[in-house]
Amino acid sequence: MQVDRPRRLVAEALGTCILVATVVGSGIMADRLTDDMALALLGNTLPTGAILVVLITILGPLSGAHFNPAVTLAFVLRREIEAGDAVSYTVVQVAGGICGALLAHAMFELPILQASTTVRTGAAQWLAEAVAAFGLVFTILAGLRFRGDAIPWLVGLYITAAYWFTASTSFANPAVAIARAFTDTFAGIRPTDLPGFIAAELIGAIVAVALAGWLLAEPRNTLETRPAE
Amino acid sequence: MQVDRPRRLVAEALGTCILVATVVGSGIMADRLTDDMALALLGNTLPTGAILVVLITILGPLSGAHFNPAVTLAFVLRREIEAGDAVSYTVVQVAGGICGALLAHAMFELPILQASTTVRTGAAQWLAEAVAAFGLVFTILAGLRFRGDAIPWLVGLYITAAYWFTASTSFANPAVAIARAFTDTFAGIRPTDLPGFIAAELIGAIVAVALAGWLLAEPRNTLETRPAE
Amino acid sequence: MQVDRPRRLVAEALGTCILVATVVGSGIMADRLTDDMALALLGNTLPTGAILVVLITILGPLSGAHFNPAVTLAFVLRREIEAGDAVSYTVVQVAGGICGALLAHAMFELPILQASTTVRTGAAQWLAEAVAAFGLVFTILAGLRFRGDAIPWLVGLYITAAYWFTASTSFANPAVAIARAFTDTFAGIRPTDLPGFIAAELIGAIVAVALAGWLLAEPRNTLETRPAE
Amino acid sequence: MQVDRPRRLVAEALGTCILVATVVGSGIMADRLTDDMALALLGNTLPTGAILVVLITILGPLSGAHFNPAVTLAFVLRREIEAGDAVSYTVVQVAGGICGALLAHAMFELPILQASTTVRTGAAQWLAEAVAAFGLVFTILAGLRFRGDAIPWLVGLYITAAYWFTASTSFANPAVAIARAFTDTFAGIRPTDLPGFIAAELIGAIVAVALAGWLLAEPRNTLETRPAE
Repeated sequence: MQVDRPRRLVAEALGTCILVATVVGSGIMADRLTDDMALALLGNTLPTGAILVVLITILGPLSGAHFNPAVTLAFVLRREIEAGDAVSYTVVQVAGGICGALLAHAMFELPILQASTTVRTGAAQWLAEAVAAFGLVFTILAGLRFRGDAIPWLVGLYITAAYWFTASTSFANPAVAIARAFTDTFAGIRPTDLPGFIAAELIGAIVAVALAGWLLAEPRNTLETRPAE
Repeated sequence: MQVDRPRRLVAEALGTCILVATVVGSGIMADRLTDDMALALLGNTLPTGAILVVLITILGPLSGAHFNPAVTLAFVLRREIEAGDAVSYTVVQVAGGICGALLAHAMFELPILQASTTVRTGAAQWLAEAVAAFGLVFTILAGLRFRGDAIPWLVGLYITAAYWFTASTSFANPAVAIARAFTDTFAGIRPTDLPGFIAAELIGAIVAVALAGWLLAEPRNTLETRPAE
Repeated sequence: MQVDRPRRLVAEALGTCILVATVVGSGIMADRLTDDMALALLGNTLPTGAILVVLITILGPLSGAHFNPAVTLAFVLRREIEAGDAVSYTVVQVAGGICGALLAHAMFELPILQASTTVRTGAAQWLAEAVAAFGLVFTILAGLRFRGDAIPWLVGLYITAAYWFTASTSFANPAVAIARAFTDTFAGIRPTDLPGFIAAELIGAIVAVALAGWLLAEPRNTLETRPAE
Repeated sequence: MQVDRPRRLVAEALGTCILVATVVGSGIMADRLTDDMALALLGNTLPTGAILVVLITILGPLSGAHFNPAVTLAFVLRREIEAGDAVSYTVVQVAGGICGALLAHAMFELPILQASTTVRTGAAQWLAEAVAAFGLVFTILAGLRFRGDAIPWLVGLYITAAYWFTASTSFANPAVAIARAFTDTFAGIRPTDLPGFIAAELIGAIVAVALAGWLLAEPRNTLETRPAE
């Protein structure tokens, strides 16, 4: 489907906005309702996984439903998106994400503008973020190769798992990470910790693109049936 | 499929009845079994999301499975349902919903007729309800545009998320809201708080129809291939 | 697919055995691990819903995957199964179910033979069981009418919801109810309470067949295109 | 799809690595966040079931997505994989699994090399493991027979259920069991308890192959239409 640029950018902004509103809002809700941190994480995980399935299904046909500069970077490396588009996507993802955090604050009667004080740093956290982003990007690329219609479910389920198996609860998304620096609630991250997270996420995405380039390559014998090049 | 009017109205009433019985009944069950409010909300969320997938799948082919005057309003605005039908739908949705609340009371040995005393009011709650209904209606309209067969899942998953990310736990449905005024249990809402909730829900639905009218429009070049109008 | 009678009966017995092993076993596991009754019910609900999707998908093509005399009764009333087969189905469902309870006891190092002492009786419980079985049978019949391939998911999700919204936690199955009388653990039911539960379940199934006969009937104009009869 | 051997082995290793990282990592996360053991098991169950759906969907087209020597044994018995390939698969599954455990330790800042001290032994545990592996292998074989496209979901849901209804929390996988001996955390198993678990798992797999050979056989009348043999 051909979709013009304004609609694609609105789709990216809207999707990232609702995604972050869900991450931040469900974190606030869960944190208010219980003292058990595992239950709070569960109340944060299930809505995030669920909304990802919804958003990717309904906005994917418009913009590809990246909602994530690390995913957009992967498509730049694969030359499946133009550089200009990639920059625009990244800008509206970040802007949409921040709006999502502010929207969550408004719904929960909290100060609209906040800065997180939650420390998330260190080599282990960065390793976790690299693993999280690697898995996310590889899942998307393999899904596109074998089961494009299943990608909304694959991403929702992958993030559901990654919230628990990565020590960082799997941000895996620079735009969402930046937006989460704007909330001093359950899902927050201290602004000074952003560079480490974002670098780790981009490295994970690059490794996933490299591995996918080899592992998911079309089989050789298919190529051989084509005329010699 | 052509379905005659009595069957369509019975389908709407039955679906809304079981939906509200699930919302109210699972709230009572969860509230009785635990003191942890996050766990109670989880015990309310999962059954609601699950029954929505079921009800929309099995009753959608009969009535469209609105179960919700805000959804019916959206189809009125899009001229996809006649005004007379829309009024009938709304009446049986409200009646079916109230029956669902009374049925839940009967199953749990509670007084059949109750009025809620739970306060749910204020600008933040109304914003949350507007967001909840906006997301629900936009999800349905985008689902119809791109993946009609996935709508039961999209709605079930959207509500699963919205229970947690909107501060109001996402009523998003005037008929269900009215029915929930008839129960002084976990899921209740004080009758005097209904107008604010209903107004917010209808505003959210109208905004969703407006945005969808632009964002989900058929691409222009498709139209250009038709003869000039 | 034509499947001979021994294979069909083994499929029914195996399916009901694993279903009851899941209901009873997960109840024991959950009850051992927590003092919070809502969490125990959640640990009972999710495995039951999940295994139903699996068992109906993999055994449905062999036997129809009833695992439930109330479902078999529905097909008798609709003349879609012969009386002799229905009796055989019911016998192996009950036998398989009891084996499942004993298997759970063996896995959890409990006395193999037990009789439940859990009281489950009274008009409200019977109403809940009638509602539970009505919903289950109606879901199956409507699923067969509109989305046969979705039935495993519909049943799994319906039971996930019904565990919470019916006050009886939705046995909805006479064979499973009998098997659960053989376990004095979380999922048990006192043998003297069985008749009330079973009668309510069969009434619910009969009402569902009656409603489905009208609500899900083929539209009249389709019939009119056939030659007069 | 024809996939060359290096890619198939990398797919098996990568899949088993991420599977074990999820099992071990989510166990560490859950155990750190709560004192309620049922909640910890839930925080271990949901990520494991979710990641299985993802991994089998995206790696199945490459290697078949066994990730499990008991599954590989089943295909050896059915002569659907060569002996040499089966040995290679088993080696990389074990190696990949151990890497997954070490990766989880690195992400959670724990000593990389550990040996479990968690006792898991006795006849009841072995029965549970045999049941768990029987159910897993039978689910896969029946899925292949009737609904190949549903296998990722069937396996994910089966394991979700089996974590709770088998007393051993369903390892059901010799490679994963060996890897779990390398972690002294929630998901661990004492190395000396491995032989009993592995033997039980292989027995369960063999019984499943035998039952499937009869129960899932092509109907006789189909064979009769072929020329006499």
